Amino acid sequence: MKAGVVDDSGRSMGNVSLPTEAHRGQEFGLERMCETIRQAVAAANLKMSDIAAIGVATPGTMDIPAGIILDPPNLKPWRNVPVRDYVQKKFKLPTAFQNDANAAAYGEYWAGAGKQARSMVLFTLGTGIGGGIIIGDMVLEGEHSHGAEVGHIKIEMTKPRQCGCGRWGCLEAYASATAVVKRATESLAKRGVKSQLKGLANKEGGLTARDVFAAAEAGDALAAEIVEDTAYYLAVGATNLMHTIDPDMVVFAGGMVAAGESFLQQIRKHVAQLAFPVPAEKTQIVYAQLGSDAGYIGAAACARRLYHQRRTSSKK
Amino acid sequence: MKAGVVDDSGRSMGNVSLPTEAHRGQEFGLERMCETIRQAVAAANLKMSDIAAIGVATPGTMDIPAGIILDPPNLKPWRNVPVRDYVQKKFKLPTAFQNDANAAAYGEYWAGAGKQARSMVLFTLGTGIGGGIIIGDMVLEGEHSHGAEVGHIKIEMTKPRQCGCGRWGCLEAYASATAVVKRATESLAKRGVKSQLKGLANKEGGLTARDVFAAAEAGDALAAEIVEDTAYYLAVGATNLMHTIDPDMVVFAGGMVAAGESFLQQIRKHVAQLAFPVPAEKTQIVYAQLGSDAGYIGAAACARRLYHQRRTSSKK
Repeated sequence: MKAGVVDDSGRSMGNVSLPTEAHRGQEFGLERMCETIRQAVAAANLKMSDIAAIGVATPGTMDIPAGIILDPPNLKPWRNVPVRDYVQKKFKLPTAFQNDANAAAYGEYWAGAGKQARSMVLFTLGTGIGGGIIIGDMVLEGEHSHGAEVGHIKIEMTKPRQCGCGRWGCLEAYASATAVVKRATESLAKRGVKSQLKGLANKEGGLTARDVFAAAEAGDALAAEIVEDTAYYLAVGATNLMHTIDPDMVVFAGGMVAAGESFLQQIRKHVAQLAFPVPAEKTQIVYAQLGSDAGYIGAAACARRLYHQRRTSSKK
Repeated sequence: MKAGVVDDSGRSMGNVSLPTEAHRGQEFGLERMCETIRQAVAAANLKMSDIAAIGVATPGTMDIPAGIILDPPNLKPWRNVPVRDYVQKKFKLPTAFQNDANAAAYGEYWAGAGKQARSMVLFTLGTGIGGGIIIGDMVLEGEHSHGAEVGHIKIEMTKPRQCGCGRWGCLEAYASATAVVKRATESLAKRGVKSQLKGLANKEGGLTARDVFAAAEAGDALAAEIVEDTAYYLAVGATNLMHTIDPDMVVFAGGMVAAGESFLQQIRKHVAQLAFPVPAEKTQIVYAQLGSDAGYIGAAACARRLYHQRRTSSKK
């Protein structure tokens, strides 16, 4: 769990991380969440009375308007946890609740890569692919808190790969860091293949997406092909969102950001061929800027908006 | 060109259609547009002075905020036509401008299938696949007037069909009426195939999507397979939008509406398998209700909103 204090301009004033220890149950987890908040405030050299509002962002299936985590796959045995109300009662401050990927998108929109954008789509590349969509300061939560599940748009029907979600042909099954490793491992298993990745596959922790990108950079042909395919898959994902949302900006976040400008250039090249000429020419395709701070900065952006809404409505 | 007069509750008071005769050029076309408006007002037994505002919706590449048709593929030799300003000057009334598929979606949202929805996605199935996305009364136009090009999301990479847009693997290349006919024709060309469609392929005008749906209804196995595949493709499209927008409602419009409830049920069955459980259970999947009136009713909805915006801002 990561918490930070963010000022009105989106600048972080300090943050802390504590282990979730999900196995200790949800009561412990909620208290740990509050403790992380207290420690972040201390880290910023502030007191709780200096804080205007709190934003909480969590992963998993949720009911955003109700402030409830429903059934988080990575936080067993949590179930139907009223996160927002718990935090709100504990600190007696306006408390906003948001999906973590949506919050990261809103953070980048407020204080990162999307500062100048009116609308943007974020793809967060990690074990899976998360996402967020912001249109004119609105976080696209969806009617059932399933908006911007951009890792789970289907891009292949004939030979679909199975996705971590159990379904088939999702973007995540092609372009997540996990999928990069899986595709590389499959290629390495082919008879007679030469690649510097062969040695790395047996190292402690096994092959990583970072290894694949590094090998491609160092001129390894097999790795270069895997990276090129990844750029293509991400371009398909970006194009599908450009033909749906048509945002000012598509932002890529997560570990692959380390691959640098050349990888982004590969994605752009494919988008130029896949998308309609106007969005292909005008949509900016860039990397995120806030790293792992995007989540709490975005949660703070949600808190900030809630705070201003309350002030406005109390004046009426 | 179709024009209608619509009252404040979304009810049509009369409409007329005149041929576009695009080959006669854009000046003629613009005047024809104005004439269609005048005749619609007359058909409603009203005078121009009874009209509060005008909405114009057109197909093709456009700049919606600027009110300009850029380069419409079906209206050669039109180019960079300032439609909105022309109509506005002619009638001296507030004039709204919108993409035709967006307008149809907004029409269904205001006065048709989506009346009770907070957000909805429309797929219009015809020669191509158009679409519109409405979120909380906002028409998702996109930053470059390319929002909701839902026929051009890519759903196949391995063996992509070429789309009418020239690109590959678009939903439209699989599930438009044109694609239904194309797939049926391909199947009929296979050696030893039996189907009642064989005779129809040589009739005047050739095979139509309607023929395929009728043959499926009558028990023809080949036609039934084409229809089932079409339902699957549309379910992939619907799921991709559900995982992006997560609307209350997905609405299908166009000729395939005639296929009735059983086709809709086939689409729903596939969505139940393709989508996440929560949106799969909660998203309504229905047919449009306004038929070919959706476009001008939606254009009127845009005009109505513009009228109210002007009134509100003039009061400040």
